[in-house]
Amino acid sequence: MKKIYGIGTGPGDPELLTLKAVRVMKEADYIFAPNNRGKNMALDTCKEFIEGKNITLLDFPMGESTEEHYKSALSKIYKTMKDGEVSVFLNIGDSTIYSTFMNMIYFNNFDDVDIEIVPGIPSFVSAANEIKENIVIKGEKFLLCDSFNGFNLDELDSIAILKTSNNLEYILDTLEKNDFRYYYVKSSSLPDQKILTDREEILKEKNYISLILARRN
Amino acid sequence: MKKIYGIGTGPGDPELLTLKAVRVMKEADYIFAPNNRGKNMALDTCKEFIEGKNITLLDFPMGESTEEHYKSALSKIYKTMKDGEVSVFLNIGDSTIYSTFMNMIYFNNFDDVDIEIVPGIPSFVSAANEIKENIVIKGEKFLLCDSFNGFNLDELDSIAILKTSNNLEYILDTLEKNDFRYYYVKSSSLPDQKILTDREEILKEKNYISLILARRN
Repeated sequence: MKKIYGIGTGPGDPELLTLKAVRVMKEADYIFAPNNRGKNMALDTCKEFIEGKNITLLDFPMGESTEEHYKSALSKIYKTMKDGEVSVFLNIGDSTIYSTFMNMIYFNNFDDVDIEIVPGIPSFVSAANEIKENIVIKGEKFLLCDSFNGFNLDELDSIAILKTSNNLEYILDTLEKNDFRYYYVKSSSLPDQKILTDREEILKEKNYISLILARRN
Repeated sequence: MKKIYGIGTGPGDPELLTLKAVRVMKEADYIFAPNNRGKNMALDTCKEFIEGKNITLLDFPMGESTEEHYKSALSKIYKTMKDGEVSVFLNIGDSTIYSTFMNMIYFNNFDDVDIEIVPGIPSFVSAANEIKENIVIKGEKFLLCDSFNGFNLDELDSIAILKTSNNLEYILDTLEKNDFRYYYVKSSSLPDQKILTDREEILKEKNYISLILARRN
């Protein structure tokens, strides 16, 4: 058997890796991560634990990945391993939340591959810890989405919107109208972390890995 | 200054603690955790890292904790520490998700206390990793709730319901009617983990720390 681990590397701070994530990547024979113009944030997070390892970046064109990309990446990982060897695929945040890994293993047809997933701290969970606000308390409901196009907030108590750059003004308008207080969180847990609550300051920002957390007042 | 850390201990497997959680609890002078009839799952998870430490269980009557309980617990932690000392308060899962810690620090009026929160892997994230199902992929929306009383699922792609014992049959009916496939997950990440997908088997179960994860077909 060959083994592939999907590992959630969390929001970015290496100390927010789990003990299991660190053990598994240290023991692995090969490290893979999605290629983001020659860089990858998950690799930065894991740097000290994968030094000297065989590291390969795989191409998944942002927002344009097709079945062929996923199959080709999986096949590359598979062919790299000899029987008994272990590969790790690194995902920022958690592998089950807006991630590449699950799309890829969906196409797994190899009989001799065992797949295991190691959870990571999602970015919105890190953000809530940093701003010291509850995501939910007893009886409350929370919505997670990557884009926001006018979901009815009446029954919700809090919300995380992971990609906000397309319609930031509309998002803030909607949250204000529904009496939600909001936080714009950029690079949660990293040295350049920024937390904004002022509407005008938020509207000046444009950052792919920023998110908005909001709670009913 | 005195310092209190709230630490999310994750779903139960000690290996799913973060490096930061382990470092902070090893360095702490005092460990606190909610009292659950003389036991506490967070303490079990952290056992090997807090051996020999000064450990105190604090009373928060399940579902009946009042302002007085929170104030009294915070005051007890405060009075235990001398200037410069560090206390850790352990929460299962993450401290911002249906947790005790945030309710308690809400009442903090002490000027000389610094509070920091260390995120943990939420149970529903662990469960999704174990069953190898996405919580969300690009464009999808996910709802998190602790009880379920007929939320409109039309705009949702997936849902986690954390306490299911009160109206399990109604929950399954609603999910089936909306064409959601579901997983009943008990003790995610622990040796006695159980994942059920069969309706009749699920209806035989009653377990406080079980949850249901469901996704639109």
